[in-house]
Amino acid sequence: MSKSFEHLLSKRALGMRKNVIREILRVVSQPGMMSLAGGIPAPETFPVEELYRINETVLDRYGAAALQYDLTEGFAPFREALVGYLTQKGISADAENLLVFNGSQSVLDTLGKILITPGDVIALESPSYLGAISAFSSYTPEYVSIETDDDGIVPASLERTLDQQPVKFIYLVTTFQNPTGRTLSIQRRRQVAEIIKAKNALVIEDDPYGDLRFRGQPVPALHAFAPENTVYVSTLSKIFAPGLRLGFCVAPPLIREWLYRAKQGADLHSNTYAQALATEYICGGFIERQVPKIIELYRPRQEAMLAALERHMPGDYRWIKPEGGMFIWVEGPAGVDAEQIYWKAVEQKVAFVPGKYFYIDPEDGLPTMRLNFTRVDEATIEAAIETLAGVVRQIGGD
Amino acid sequence: MSKSFEHLLSKRALGMRKNVIREILRVVSQPGMMSLAGGIPAPETFPVEELYRINETVLDRYGAAALQYDLTEGFAPFREALVGYLTQKGISADAENLLVFNGSQSVLDTLGKILITPGDVIALESPSYLGAISAFSSYTPEYVSIETDDDGIVPASLERTLDQQPVKFIYLVTTFQNPTGRTLSIQRRRQVAEIIKAKNALVIEDDPYGDLRFRGQPVPALHAFAPENTVYVSTLSKIFAPGLRLGFCVAPPLIREWLYRAKQGADLHSNTYAQALATEYICGGFIERQVPKIIELYRPRQEAMLAALERHMPGDYRWIKPEGGMFIWVEGPAGVDAEQIYWKAVEQKVAFVPGKYFYIDPEDGLPTMRLNFTRVDEATIEAAIETLAGVVRQIGGD
Repeated sequence: MSKSFEHLLSKRALGMRKNVIREILRVVSQPGMMSLAGGIPAPETFPVEELYRINETVLDRYGAAALQYDLTEGFAPFREALVGYLTQKGISADAENLLVFNGSQSVLDTLGKILITPGDVIALESPSYLGAISAFSSYTPEYVSIETDDDGIVPASLERTLDQQPVKFIYLVTTFQNPTGRTLSIQRRRQVAEIIKAKNALVIEDDPYGDLRFRGQPVPALHAFAPENTVYVSTLSKIFAPGLRLGFCVAPPLIREWLYRAKQGADLHSNTYAQALATEYICGGFIERQVPKIIELYRPRQEAMLAALERHMPGDYRWIKPEGGMFIWVEGPAGVDAEQIYWKAVEQKVAFVPGKYFYIDPEDGLPTMRLNFTRVDEATIEAAIETLAGVVRQIGGD
Repeated sequence: MSKSFEHLLSKRALGMRKNVIREILRVVSQPGMMSLAGGIPAPETFPVEELYRINETVLDRYGAAALQYDLTEGFAPFREALVGYLTQKGISADAENLLVFNGSQSVLDTLGKILITPGDVIALESPSYLGAISAFSSYTPEYVSIETDDDGIVPASLERTLDQQPVKFIYLVTTFQNPTGRTLSIQRRRQVAEIIKAKNALVIEDDPYGDLRFRGQPVPALHAFAPENTVYVSTLSKIFAPGLRLGFCVAPPLIREWLYRAKQGADLHSNTYAQALATEYICGGFIERQVPKIIELYRPRQEAMLAALERHMPGDYRWIKPEGGMFIWVEGPAGVDAEQIYWKAVEQKVAFVPGKYFYIDPEDGLPTMRLNFTRVDEATIEAAIETLAGVVRQIGGD
């Protein structure tokens, strides 16, 4: 009987695919697996103990108001707290241009909803964050790729892309990108800002990892150089708790207005109680103590991974040393297919994500691998990389 | 500058409208206003005191897992708790066919997303819940109205509607409907079930108010009579706390599979922590004590409103006496425009919602009014209805 409902599906639904990565990662939950595959925070970074107190403060201070229907744009005290947090980072946010969503994923989905008419062209850096592609794809756009190197997207390639066809928007993760860990350099940010201003183009700047900086100087957001042409998107998932689903964006007025309307129809507003918890997390000074703790957990893990790669990987494999984030991106020589490495590695209890899945055309990324270092300790990282390098030498090395 | 982005908006976005009701209700927040306009729970029904304890239990029991990324389909202990809750109500739910969303609004939005191709026809009872129309409209369907009377939709009209054109789905609030308070009678449920089974049609059954029953016998959900042709949608907003945004649905396998894919792309999953709180609210026995308290607060308010209407309203106005819910629907004689009554009433500090806004064609509902009784006490209700009846006699009565 249920089969017979297939004729009811929208054209849009038929464009939605299951997350391929989830499918190939099913094996990762096997016992004893050393997983460099995930992209999620270590649970020991969550302020569980502090939350006993934060909950009490929220119930004392807001009472029933923290449990009631609330504004579509977000809980007013939380928006104020975010304005303070963003202003510190040099982002010109105010209570008017800020909107709260259910995780940054739902900002991306709603941007797709208000901007994409089927067939519209979206420009993506190559490789790109898969979750964004999944959010946009349900509105059936076409994609074009912008070339990238170790400093992020190549401005000349961006310019060429914008000249070749009308582009609805450009989607970029500017700092410690997923999957590559790359950061768009400050010079490039200036150039990109000039280009999008000159061409009146719109960039969606996704910045979930910017606060996870282990060394080096912070780089201002692209939004700081072109606020009228940029929607700045971020989240508390990596610096508080992803389960609370707290994403937000700062958008030019017209985009903000339509995001508001779309969100009102889609879910009325985001979780009031979670926003109240986050307000106290930020205003009660918890965030200032917690973020350094998170960095102190992740930095040695990243260093252990870089050292192990140096020690074990064949000379024709390369990677950059990101100043933060959650990933190391490893590129093998032409001719290697990292998915073959993947299947051999999981037999030896090491998992990672073959990088080709982050490309519009998987052929462009055959020899690449995304390695995550946030979920496993240093000893496991050393063992996992040694094993992985063994597999690489066996089937994909020099 | 921002003006120049108008060309970037999707065709879909241009179909989204601001909520008209919100616009006309701006005056409601004026000091001293006696508001029968809202549709939201009384804050004194929220278990604020209990939440101190529930929070502790959740942090003790689940720790970091309550704060981590989680499954798209919903937090496993919460789905189990919901299966128990729904089974008690005679709804054949299991962990496989149940999905958790950010409020029932986001179930409706996601159903629109996977089912509606622009121009598809959706059948609505007339009048209908405005939030649903707002969710569906962003996917640009056409609407047709099904006739209703005091027992809900008229089966012959449903049958005619399904014969006249292909209908993607039928949207119904079956119990204590918003805005009318009407309940689809059990005989009608059987008839509707036969019709949709015979025509292989799909009903979205929205049931946010079913547990708010003040008297009379519970009626089984339409879903119980036609589970393979019904998506059952509900929420904890009226019996726990709307700010936690906990909606859910029980759907036939194919619909469930596509809802899952769409939700994965749209927001990954719903708030884990809120789901953990709700798990304890249900499994810790809080819900069994709280729902009777909510009913004991609302029942005398509804009785006060019915008595005051009886006492004060002119003889040519009529209303039914719903056995529960949050609304009384008042119909005036032909020729009356309740929006005129509205503007006069607000001058005298009484607000309500003119019913015409709940119709696809507002002309069909000119003399109707939706009165909410959950947010104000009995004395205020008596005073508000007396004032309202005065205005009615002055400009719209006999």
